[in-house]
Amino acid sequence: MTTTTSRNARGPAEPTAAALAALRPLPSGGATVDGGLWGHRLRVNREASVPEGLGHLREYGNVRNLEIAAGLAEGEATGPVFADSDVHKWLEAAAWEYGRAPDEGLLADILEVTRAVAGAQAPDGYLDSVPQLRGVPRYSDLPWSHEHYCAGHLVQAAVAQSRATGRHELLDVAVRLADHLVETFGDGEGQLREVDGHPVVESALVELYRETGTRAYLDLARWFVEARGTGIIEGHGKQPTYFSDRVRVREATTVEGHAVRAVYLGAGATDVAVETGDHELLAALERQYAAMVDGKQYLTGGLGSRWDGESFGDPHELPNDRAYAETCAAIGGVHWAWRLLLATGDARYADQIERLLLNGFLAGLSLGGTEYFYVNPLRLRTGAHAEEERNPAAGRRPWFGCACCPPNIMRTLSSLEGYLATVTDDALQVHQYAPGTIVADLPAGTLRVRVETEYPHDGRVTLHVEEASGGAGLALRVPGWADGATLDGAPVAAGAYATVGRPLAAGDAVVLELPVVPRLTAADPRVDDARGCVAIERGPLVYALEQADQDAGAVVDDVRIDVARPLGEEERPELLGGVVVVTATGTVQGRPATAAGDGPYRPASETGPAAGGTVTLRAVPYHLWANRGAQAMRVWLPVA
Amino acid sequence: MTTTTSRNARGPAEPTAAALAALRPLPSGGATVDGGLWGHRLRVNREASVPEGLGHLREYGNVRNLEIAAGLAEGEATGPVFADSDVHKWLEAAAWEYGRAPDEGLLADILEVTRAVAGAQAPDGYLDSVPQLRGVPRYSDLPWSHEHYCAGHLVQAAVAQSRATGRHELLDVAVRLADHLVETFGDGEGQLREVDGHPVVESALVELYRETGTRAYLDLARWFVEARGTGIIEGHGKQPTYFSDRVRVREATTVEGHAVRAVYLGAGATDVAVETGDHELLAALERQYAAMVDGKQYLTGGLGSRWDGESFGDPHELPNDRAYAETCAAIGGVHWAWRLLLATGDARYADQIERLLLNGFLAGLSLGGTEYFYVNPLRLRTGAHAEEERNPAAGRRPWFGCACCPPNIMRTLSSLEGYLATVTDDALQVHQYAPGTIVADLPAGTLRVRVETEYPHDGRVTLHVEEASGGAGLALRVPGWADGATLDGAPVAAGAYATVGRPLAAGDAVVLELPVVPRLTAADPRVDDARGCVAIERGPLVYALEQADQDAGAVVDDVRIDVARPLGEEERPELLGGVVVVTATGTVQGRPATAAGDGPYRPASETGPAAGGTVTLRAVPYHLWANRGAQAMRVWLPVA
Repeated sequence: MTTTTSRNARGPAEPTAAALAALRPLPSGGATVDGGLWGHRLRVNREASVPEGLGHLREYGNVRNLEIAAGLAEGEATGPVFADSDVHKWLEAAAWEYGRAPDEGLLADILEVTRAVAGAQAPDGYLDSVPQLRGVPRYSDLPWSHEHYCAGHLVQAAVAQSRATGRHELLDVAVRLADHLVETFGDGEGQLREVDGHPVVESALVELYRETGTRAYLDLARWFVEARGTGIIEGHGKQPTYFSDRVRVREATTVEGHAVRAVYLGAGATDVAVETGDHELLAALERQYAAMVDGKQYLTGGLGSRWDGESFGDPHELPNDRAYAETCAAIGGVHWAWRLLLATGDARYADQIERLLLNGFLAGLSLGGTEYFYVNPLRLRTGAHAEEERNPAAGRRPWFGCACCPPNIMRTLSSLEGYLATVTDDALQVHQYAPGTIVADLPAGTLRVRVETEYPHDGRVTLHVEEASGGAGLALRVPGWADGATLDGAPVAAGAYATVGRPLAAGDAVVLELPVVPRLTAADPRVDDARGCVAIERGPLVYALEQADQDAGAVVDDVRIDVARPLGEEERPELLGGVVVVTATGTVQGRPATAAGDGPYRPASETGPAAGGTVTLRAVPYHLWANRGAQAMRVWLPVA
Repeated sequence: MTTTTSRNARGPAEPTAAALAALRPLPSGGATVDGGLWGHRLRVNREASVPEGLGHLREYGNVRNLEIAAGLAEGEATGPVFADSDVHKWLEAAAWEYGRAPDEGLLADILEVTRAVAGAQAPDGYLDSVPQLRGVPRYSDLPWSHEHYCAGHLVQAAVAQSRATGRHELLDVAVRLADHLVETFGDGEGQLREVDGHPVVESALVELYRETGTRAYLDLARWFVEARGTGIIEGHGKQPTYFSDRVRVREATTVEGHAVRAVYLGAGATDVAVETGDHELLAALERQYAAMVDGKQYLTGGLGSRWDGESFGDPHELPNDRAYAETCAAIGGVHWAWRLLLATGDARYADQIERLLLNGFLAGLSLGGTEYFYVNPLRLRTGAHAEEERNPAAGRRPWFGCACCPPNIMRTLSSLEGYLATVTDDALQVHQYAPGTIVADLPAGTLRVRVETEYPHDGRVTLHVEEASGGAGLALRVPGWADGATLDGAPVAAGAYATVGRPLAAGDAVVLELPVVPRLTAADPRVDDARGCVAIERGPLVYALEQADQDAGAVVDDVRIDVARPLGEEERPELLGGVVVVTATGTVQGRPATAAGDGPYRPASETGPAAGGTVTLRAVPYHLWANRGAQAMRVWLPVA
């Protein structure tokens, strides 16, 4: 068996030379992480999540569906109509893992699954095993059938397999499938003028264009983006809003409807905009992203306020207990922000990626890498969901019948190193900080740095220059929250890139000091659930109170924080894999002395119940909650 | 054509002489309303809602379905599987209307629709036109098919027709249908051990037992109540919680799942408990009702916090903007409270009925009687739902595809007079105050009073005694909010019944003075969306700010109320049919000076934007909101 991997293999989003791009991604392998928070998470992903994930996909029948369609097994299709997509996401994750460190066992699994996928493909290129096995007429219910959605994930997996393993088995399948789509969809004679209810194929087709050079894929992606919002999805059981089909993408001023669909579409439309040089579309997408940030995003980065329709709400409609904040939406948010970062070079998109990855995304995965949150609330009351044992907000689960999130987490972690840094012709930009090595081969020369840091637990990031030639420059993101940051001892502005002013040479060390200390954050008063509250953050991490860490009697539902008293820190190496606990001083609000049936409403003139004595409040990083069993948790704390 | 109506016809819930009952309903016609708020609403219901409702039921195909099944028309079934139920609810409303004032045109409509219903019935008694026409096997999907739900509404309509018109056409249909159910469901050999996903048949069967004396109907109702919570509904796409099937009714400690289903079940189980003398079950239902009041009810009485599953949330999960508070749930809440009031005589249930009727229920109907809210939020932001033109929270609609609420409102108004007063052997209890006449024929003698009042706009209720014999007593409910109330000038306790101590004689006047003045109400601090807020109430009415009434620049989303300044009143006879506007002093909270994409989160240490100058806030009764177009509205007002 021969395989090829290349030092110059490429990562998940690779704009062409002609694209609108302020920054360009590093080649795959250009940035590696080998320790710290992300190093641990990447190791667990490789050792636990990815192998167990394949087991679950076999157990739940997703792989089997493809094997049956390929004639390699017998039986009937099981699972949701989009069951293939989770296999494709796993294939993508496994490919990036292989690229990170080739492994024959992993490759054997990849190829076995790839054979089933390839075997399931119809002679004309169509491929989606569940509709195939169930005899559902092709594209007969595209708003709900997810046929393009499955195709999109297949294409993404194929591109990853090509880039990370050098193998073309899946890419050949993807090309046939994409050719079939090009032939079938569009405004031409006899073509179907329809779009999938769930975007993702747009990004995928652009990436296949980037990989193969076949312009028709880009054209079809653009067609899919432009067709939306023209009333193309009507009368399919939900309003067009749900399907991101109420308004044309280039005319939209905000995000709306199903959150995952909306941000996937945003990412795909951004790909289209940069590859077609469409400044107007790109500007519209930047406006939409800003509107999302301004009124429709949780402090955790979480996206989607409503369980109903898994959707964005109105601006400032951000309930904590019923936050949906699907893990997949955080991932789509990263995809979109990354594409806008490449297009614009605006540091705020890199801030977004950090907030999303370290909070709203990472909460989706247990420390052990084998349990998942589908939804990510910012509050769980004591005893909440007592009547709903399987409520996905009340504890991580090993897997789901609708398992979009777990393999999405896997592929995100497997490709995470691709989001750490970018290059321009003459400089390296480091956006995210983790211990490891970054190598940039620039026209101006090579720059290799060794990153040493315990970030985000600590704010010091030291970049040891191991190789520097041709005057290559270095720019480091200073997060928006990092007022007081210094670069080599000199103050630098928060929310921007700090450029190292001196020529770099091997042996140099550059030291960025970020003020990773606890701080209190407040929200716009229009956010009902944060009114009169503060949240604790520390560096890029949002913190949360969990019941397990509180003083006896300090029920999380009833505590108040005294903002006049200083916050403290406790190093707790034994807790949750090692965390810095943030401490605060609080009180416990008494409860009204009422009898059953008195109700929760009282004359405002009545003096409320007295507060109890002072307690110490202890907060842990939000992304680690529910690793000691689901229990009361809250991010926003009422001020005493 | 001959019809019979009886002065002693009975109302919608008529416990037998053997039932557990502290109070007994007046006969239908015992209490009449002829003016004031309810008089206006009853007139509009009769003149606009009920006739237009039949038109909509014809237009949407609900009547046609039955006509087709009866062989009176040709075609295919249209609408949801429970389409019949809305016809049945209309028949119930029309029957009570006929009982209130016989009208030949109305009776002709009733009989025409009744013929279609009767004609649709299968020879063995089964009746549900949509499954019949669609060829769906009977009871093949009872958790979703609503076959018992439709049967329940048919039975209720039949009982109403019998009691209010004296005609038995529909009762004969109901008896055949109920006999079929008795034969088909239960623990016996060959019987189906299944329950409907949507309760209502329980109450209906008990009422049919009360009407006919056939014990088997009560036994089946009890069987349906007892079967729930034994895992009888599993694997039907939702958790058993949704179907009120997680826990046995007599073991449940709270309400959960779909709100309408839960409260209908509570009402039906209460009927079963009182007729079977089941003190344990009755006590369980009282506990559940109290738990609902304590943590799962809005200030408006609204029930159901979640759009997802149209369901109750966790205790204190009461979002204002996404309150579901379905109009039907308020109606079910009235049904349940009325049954508990009859069983226990506890004034708090009469308070509940008043809160529900005048706020959460009445908001469901436009002043003109032809537009309806399905959901009843406590807040609508400026520009909210801009992307969802058909969002049922953003404005009343003339009708719905799923039209459960409109005819439910009609039948509630048509039978409203039945909820005003009760009797014991020796006294009349008046629970709700409206101008009109109440006649109680008691074993002890007759008491006839003429009620004169502008309540709830004014707090004075004068009862002119027109006839009094045999020493019949009189008790008047003093609402829980009415601290400072007087009866004939003497202080009386709030939240209880005030008994007239002297013997009554014709020509006497009894004067109850209720302190109907504006007041401020606060909520338990665990209710996130009311934290730091107060609501304005005046007598039994919850008030709300609507944008149309505010000073220029006083955007409802940004106002704050100054609770140190007194509230005022303005009589506005020209506004919304005549209201008392409550005024308050407020300020306008500034908004942070941010640029697009800055996001809503800030360091807590930053000084917030300054408040603007003083403004006058003007509030109108919540139930009248959105009668001048949907616009920003809020019940809970942040304190300055």
